[in-house]
Amino acid sequence: MQSVPNLEAIKNAAQRIEPFINKTPVLSSKTINDRIGASLFFKCENFQKTGSFKMRGASNFVMSLSAEAIKNGVATQSSGNHGQALAYVAQQLGVPAYIVMPNNSAQPKIQSVEAYQGKIIFCEPTIQAREAAVAKVIQETNAYYVPPYNDYGIIAGQATTALELIQEIPDLDMIISPIGGGGLMSGTALVTHYLQPQTRIIGVEPSAVDDALRSVKTGVLQENSSTNTIADGLRASLRDKTFGVIREYVHEIYTVEEHEIVAAMRLIWERMKIIIEPSCAVPFGAVLFGKIPDTENKKIGIILTGGNVDLDKLPWK
Amino acid sequence: MQSVPNLEAIKNAAQRIEPFINKTPVLSSKTINDRIGASLFFKCENFQKTGSFKMRGASNFVMSLSAEAIKNGVATQSSGNHGQALAYVAQQLGVPAYIVMPNNSAQPKIQSVEAYQGKIIFCEPTIQAREAAVAKVIQETNAYYVPPYNDYGIIAGQATTALELIQEIPDLDMIISPIGGGGLMSGTALVTHYLQPQTRIIGVEPSAVDDALRSVKTGVLQENSSTNTIADGLRASLRDKTFGVIREYVHEIYTVEEHEIVAAMRLIWERMKIIIEPSCAVPFGAVLFGKIPDTENKKIGIILTGGNVDLDKLPWK
Repeated sequence: MQSVPNLEAIKNAAQRIEPFINKTPVLSSKTINDRIGASLFFKCENFQKTGSFKMRGASNFVMSLSAEAIKNGVATQSSGNHGQALAYVAQQLGVPAYIVMPNNSAQPKIQSVEAYQGKIIFCEPTIQAREAAVAKVIQETNAYYVPPYNDYGIIAGQATTALELIQEIPDLDMIISPIGGGGLMSGTALVTHYLQPQTRIIGVEPSAVDDALRSVKTGVLQENSSTNTIADGLRASLRDKTFGVIREYVHEIYTVEEHEIVAAMRLIWERMKIIIEPSCAVPFGAVLFGKIPDTENKKIGIILTGGNVDLDKLPWK
Repeated sequence: MQSVPNLEAIKNAAQRIEPFINKTPVLSSKTINDRIGASLFFKCENFQKTGSFKMRGASNFVMSLSAEAIKNGVATQSSGNHGQALAYVAQQLGVPAYIVMPNNSAQPKIQSVEAYQGKIIFCEPTIQAREAAVAKVIQETNAYYVPPYNDYGIIAGQATTALELIQEIPDLDMIISPIGGGGLMSGTALVTHYLQPQTRIIGVEPSAVDDALRSVKTGVLQENSSTNTIADGLRASLRDKTFGVIREYVHEIYTVEEHEIVAAMRLIWERMKIIIEPSCAVPFGAVLFGKIPDTENKKIGIILTGGNVDLDKLPWK
């Protein structure tokens, strides 16, 4: 896809990926609503196939390609959910998936990619080593590269999350998404802008990786000096395409601290009895700790991005 | 209620408790189904109000009483879910709830009862001390005693869980419930017998507290010599009413080992992204570890009883 997806492109994506995804539920908790003083609607992508919304972008991207283009398989580099999603899609289509993973990846993530029969190529845990490894595997195999987020086809796929949320709960006062590389945030912003222009579009990121906030403030794409956050799905930085969409369509960006992420995550586990990964707790943390102005009595949509956590390494131990 | 509830009594209970409960979802997991080689339908009472099915029995019992009968409040002894459920029901009705709890109760359980404004009376952690404490509080307050399980009104309330499951998934080959004191198992057996007499009715208990299996085998109510199981909701023993129903209507009883319970619990957390307490994992553990004959390609209903766990004390640490 060559340009910012319009509403038709997003609806086409929804149709294209339908056989690959679960229509995930929207859940609420009376206890949490009472505590916050607002009505929160959680779109539960932790119940998505492979455990995260990444299925949507990956399946839209791959299904937009010809059978000829992917006959030698697909490839990407990912330490997390995108790699699992791509391995699953490739397995469904009967083509190989080459997933470059840093050699310090968590064991459950390695096992998940293997469970979907992804072929793992380990590399040193640096950006340079990862990019070199994926270039090498593509050269050797002629696999098709599937980017994790900085791509309009990926963005159109991720946009179907908010599309479903808005179709189910149409009159939200605000919709909140976490920002990592910005694929989900871009998709969320676009579809909300098209369908509900009066809805406040809000992004939240850990203050440890606040490149989106700084990029939008300065108008120049910023990097993160470290990636030291528990929200492992949000360590990536914006790139040109996601930055372009976010600076135009996202109305407000806030940050949360690490202890706020952990507290928000634990509260959702305890009260809603669902398993969410730390990245999901970032938008809810912003609401819980009063980072977002004027939430009282509002209808607030929150995207819970995934549920892939290492149960041996929970953050409250 | 003076006699074993018939179908009408169970349907009346469903109507009576409707304002108090969530109609909980029935979830499935393709990954788990593929692994087991059967279709499993999990009735998710972990999403029930107060986090367990105990809401159903407690609210049915209390709502069957007159306003006069409960004007001085309600009382019970419980270290767990029944106490939370009763405190919640009483709070909704605006009467006090006196909950006798052993002084070694887990902190989250104490906090939950307090959150529903239950008045906690601590006692020594023995059956005798608990019974003495509840007798004393009833004498002092004239509160109405609400039993945890050995009562036909409680059984009729718990039966509404399987009623909803059967209404949603009508042609189950078997339905499996854990057995502790036997309230849920009795209700499950009755409603399944009435509506789907061809369905196999199966109970599972930890082998450490296998009083139900021994009671049914010998025809005489047995005690457990210890209550040393991680499945804290199943430490109670059958009593006359639950034993009577179970020996007549439950077709098969199996047991599982402690490590099997933990493995089954963890698999549900990891693959389904939902939080269930150890007691819930007992029926699934029996399926997972091949304790139940002839499950292949069958449609199996499993009741997940609750989601109240202490996140600081997970069993795989």
